[in-house]
Amino acid sequence: MFSRYFPILIWARDYDRETLVNDLIAAIIVTIMLIPQSLAYALLAGLPPEVGLYASIAPLVIYAIFGTSRTLAVGPVAVASLMTAAAVGELAVQGTPEYIAAAILLAFLSGLMLTLMGLLRLGFLANFLSHPVISGFITASAIIIAAGQIKNLTGIPIEGHNLLQILESLFARIDQFNLDTALIGLGAIVFLYWARRKLKPLLKKAGLSERLADIGVKMAPILSITATTLVVFLFSLDHVGVLVVGAIPNALPAPAIPAFDAALWRELAMPALLISIVGYVETVSVAQTLAAKRRQRIDPDQELIALGTANLGSAVSGGFPVTGGFSRSVVNFEAGAQTPAAGAFTAIGIAMATVFLTPLIYYLPKATLGATIFVAVLSLVDLKTIRHTFAYSKADFAAMAATILLTLLQGVEIGIITGVAISLFLHLQRTSKPHYAIVGRVPGTEHFRNILRHAVETDPETLSIRIDESLYFPNARFLEDTINSTLAADPAIKNVVLMCPAVNFIDASALESIEALNERLHDNHVRLHLSEVKGPVMDRLKRTSFLQKLGGNIYLSQNDAFEDSRI
Amino acid sequence: MFSRYFPILIWARDYDRETLVNDLIAAIIVTIMLIPQSLAYALLAGLPPEVGLYASIAPLVIYAIFGTSRTLAVGPVAVASLMTAAAVGELAVQGTPEYIAAAILLAFLSGLMLTLMGLLRLGFLANFLSHPVISGFITASAIIIAAGQIKNLTGIPIEGHNLLQILESLFARIDQFNLDTALIGLGAIVFLYWARRKLKPLLKKAGLSERLADIGVKMAPILSITATTLVVFLFSLDHVGVLVVGAIPNALPAPAIPAFDAALWRELAMPALLISIVGYVETVSVAQTLAAKRRQRIDPDQELIALGTANLGSAVSGGFPVTGGFSRSVVNFEAGAQTPAAGAFTAIGIAMATVFLTPLIYYLPKATLGATIFVAVLSLVDLKTIRHTFAYSKADFAAMAATILLTLLQGVEIGIITGVAISLFLHLQRTSKPHYAIVGRVPGTEHFRNILRHAVETDPETLSIRIDESLYFPNARFLEDTINSTLAADPAIKNVVLMCPAVNFIDASALESIEALNERLHDNHVRLHLSEVKGPVMDRLKRTSFLQKLGGNIYLSQNDAFEDSRI
Repeated sequence: MFSRYFPILIWARDYDRETLVNDLIAAIIVTIMLIPQSLAYALLAGLPPEVGLYASIAPLVIYAIFGTSRTLAVGPVAVASLMTAAAVGELAVQGTPEYIAAAILLAFLSGLMLTLMGLLRLGFLANFLSHPVISGFITASAIIIAAGQIKNLTGIPIEGHNLLQILESLFARIDQFNLDTALIGLGAIVFLYWARRKLKPLLKKAGLSERLADIGVKMAPILSITATTLVVFLFSLDHVGVLVVGAIPNALPAPAIPAFDAALWRELAMPALLISIVGYVETVSVAQTLAAKRRQRIDPDQELIALGTANLGSAVSGGFPVTGGFSRSVVNFEAGAQTPAAGAFTAIGIAMATVFLTPLIYYLPKATLGATIFVAVLSLVDLKTIRHTFAYSKADFAAMAATILLTLLQGVEIGIITGVAISLFLHLQRTSKPHYAIVGRVPGTEHFRNILRHAVETDPETLSIRIDESLYFPNARFLEDTINSTLAADPAIKNVVLMCPAVNFIDASALESIEALNERLHDNHVRLHLSEVKGPVMDRLKRTSFLQKLGGNIYLSQNDAFEDSRI
Repeated sequence: MFSRYFPILIWARDYDRETLVNDLIAAIIVTIMLIPQSLAYALLAGLPPEVGLYASIAPLVIYAIFGTSRTLAVGPVAVASLMTAAAVGELAVQGTPEYIAAAILLAFLSGLMLTLMGLLRLGFLANFLSHPVISGFITASAIIIAAGQIKNLTGIPIEGHNLLQILESLFARIDQFNLDTALIGLGAIVFLYWARRKLKPLLKKAGLSERLADIGVKMAPILSITATTLVVFLFSLDHVGVLVVGAIPNALPAPAIPAFDAALWRELAMPALLISIVGYVETVSVAQTLAAKRRQRIDPDQELIALGTANLGSAVSGGFPVTGGFSRSVVNFEAGAQTPAAGAFTAIGIAMATVFLTPLIYYLPKATLGATIFVAVLSLVDLKTIRHTFAYSKADFAAMAATILLTLLQGVEIGIITGVAISLFLHLQRTSKPHYAIVGRVPGTEHFRNILRHAVETDPETLSIRIDESLYFPNARFLEDTINSTLAADPAIKNVVLMCPAVNFIDASALESIEALNERLHDNHVRLHLSEVKGPVMDRLKRTSFLQKLGGNIYLSQNDAFEDSRI
């Protein structure tokens, strides 16, 4: 029981030397990958670069304690960073202490919400964000992020959290284009793309093993950072308009709990909830994918607690919202991480980098970080899923298209709220009509089939309806409507048989509905019968007076009903 | 097609003399009943009494044109009046022109929303308010309304929209108790109760027919109004503190469309939505009940349009929100109304009363109206349903209890919002887990049954899962979780068969989920098979590349799969 909330107690028992070595190797590789990403995503969120490093320390240690995935790597990710920038940008000006405080509070609130949802076992709620909607949202967010990087890649001070705003300020300020910045940015993009596509075969040809070649590819961002930092330093490009990261405090901040400010908390509650949902959906889907590859299992409700406490840890240690990241988790997995201890070791690596390496990145050009973000997010643009969804289901595609358009044109918050609303609406619509069929007997058998699809025997005085779903309040009235309309159209009917082989439960609303139906039919001299009622449903009905009031009979099989009403 | 939106075109064709006579008789009886109710419910909503009469004219004529129920009677009702008082009381002081304008705007907004929902065919959304929640809400509202009538029944100027506020101001101002008012109020209550219980047998004993006796009972409120008005007039009780209705304009107001005021519209949007939902749910359920008794049918989406335009009509003619009322519709039905023309005739009756009778009710004591409300709403307190729900389902009872408590202690708005939220939550929770069973073969047959309930044959290397519901995004992940957990626990499994006889559709999310599942199983050297896939589902799957990627086979019957994987 205790270990349900502390999965570390399970894997730590069998922790041995070999696992340690595997975890350490993975941690080194992830650390190297995470440093540029942390700096870049902090920039994307409108925060000083060191905040990205802070968000990559405590959350990883906490996830190692509470997480059920063996290989998930948490930290700052692109979409949550964009959502942070959009939410906090409404309340404070970038670069001010208020802005940083609001971003930290956002992580804190998101952490509280996720932890609470986990304790209440509400993980299922995240399912109500459909795949097409979340996938469309991520694609649109990635496009906004990529477009936004024009700022870092060209020096043009563009602003905005949606495509229209970004393009508008781009054209308004195009005169501030900086050639040196653009050359560094373009160079970094070309290099990173080339490394992604061509470096691995090259390294393998040079005699490196598959695994070492993989590691080599992951080093590319660090290489681009080193190279461009050197170039800026050597040619003093920071004096000709190339923006650099500048001085970064090389100490970890003292832990602090955000102060309570009712107005600010209220303002950030909705964005925090949205970041929580999107972050959680992503986290669980990454964790699920990796766990399944090794026949391990994750506990979705415990993942809420783990992600929630990780965000609380991020906030307390001066970081911003974190999520399970797809690419870094895959790297962690492929680098051979065996347990979440790899994450804790990564945290140590990042902490050391924060203390020792920050002086070295004074001259790191923001253009390089922009290139890192640009290349990373373009892989999130998923045109294939858009195409497939279009081919498979027009309804799902419409939901996806609405989410994409609203996200691009209005911004992430409106985009994701619309997505959630559309998903819920589709769900409510679908479940408000139970699947049912009017049935008749296949001649010579005891089977009953849909009269629309099969040549079957029917009795003109008897209406037999097979309900293919449980009966509960959203579909209760539909059954009433259907039977009432059918009876209004066909005055010959004297018996109605509800065939219930697929009815797993009947809630209080549906019971009331059937009771009303029985009474109305009775007033019209029509008898209501039931057939093939499941045991548990019957047990429950026996607790009520319905069975006494029922105008007709209860039959074990539909065939009994059919034979009987003929008499 | 045209007549879908104008049901009047259907019944007006066959309108004859006999129908006219029946409708006229019903209209006279309903008019007599509706006059005191209209005055009383206006008082309950904190409005001048004449506003109740205005709300009983235009809406009835409009419903006659657009309504699909032959016998529904719309007008002011108790619960909507209380909700109006609660919503408008937040924005303006009772008795001011702003208060009246806000109540009119509330009807207008509610009308716009309902009409729009009807045109978009969103009637199904109302189903998501479960029976126990709406029934609990009405019971709690009725208790608040009854408690609130202590004001009219005793002269103590109590205030408040929830039980706590009412009791608090009652004890604070108990010294303002007025004995004459209390005697009139108590007398009216005792008379109305007596009439309800004892008058009919008495009249029948006196030789009246069943129908005439019924009509006699309906006259009781008018009788109590006449008697108490006379008493106040003769003894000048209005000079000793008995509050009377006073001067009422005896002309109909000029039609006017509410002015647009963005701030006010925004403030009233939520209350208008809540009144719309509650009013619609009640309207449809009354209409449904009465229609079924005569084997007629109603169209729930058209009812939205009818109720919406009725509310627009109420607003334009100076009235407040209206709804289909249960008791007056039953009276209309039992008095023999054949078509909605009866409603239009009732409207003429009310209009004539507004012009000619209003001078006569100057001395009508508010205590009598309070007594009318008190007696009317106590019949809405439905303890039987509370008891039945408790016996039948603890989950439904919990939802009901929460709604009742919050409505009583916090007020109608929070009460109904909580109710809607709980209903939705329960629905989402229930539909996030599809019903499924791990199955095996009943020996000697080709039937497959749940391994937990039957002694069946299974193959240790094969996991056969029968899914009993359609697969869509809210339950897509559940299937993944279930199969992953089972596989993680049992490494012997080499084949997974999804038995899909009850899967009516697979949406894009579920398809993606199954594709991911197939891929993961493949990586683990486990084959995924499908059996008993329905035709339409198969057609759709053929549009995708899933069937090519499927690691296993597709079997027409589960038995084929069982036989085959043994090989």
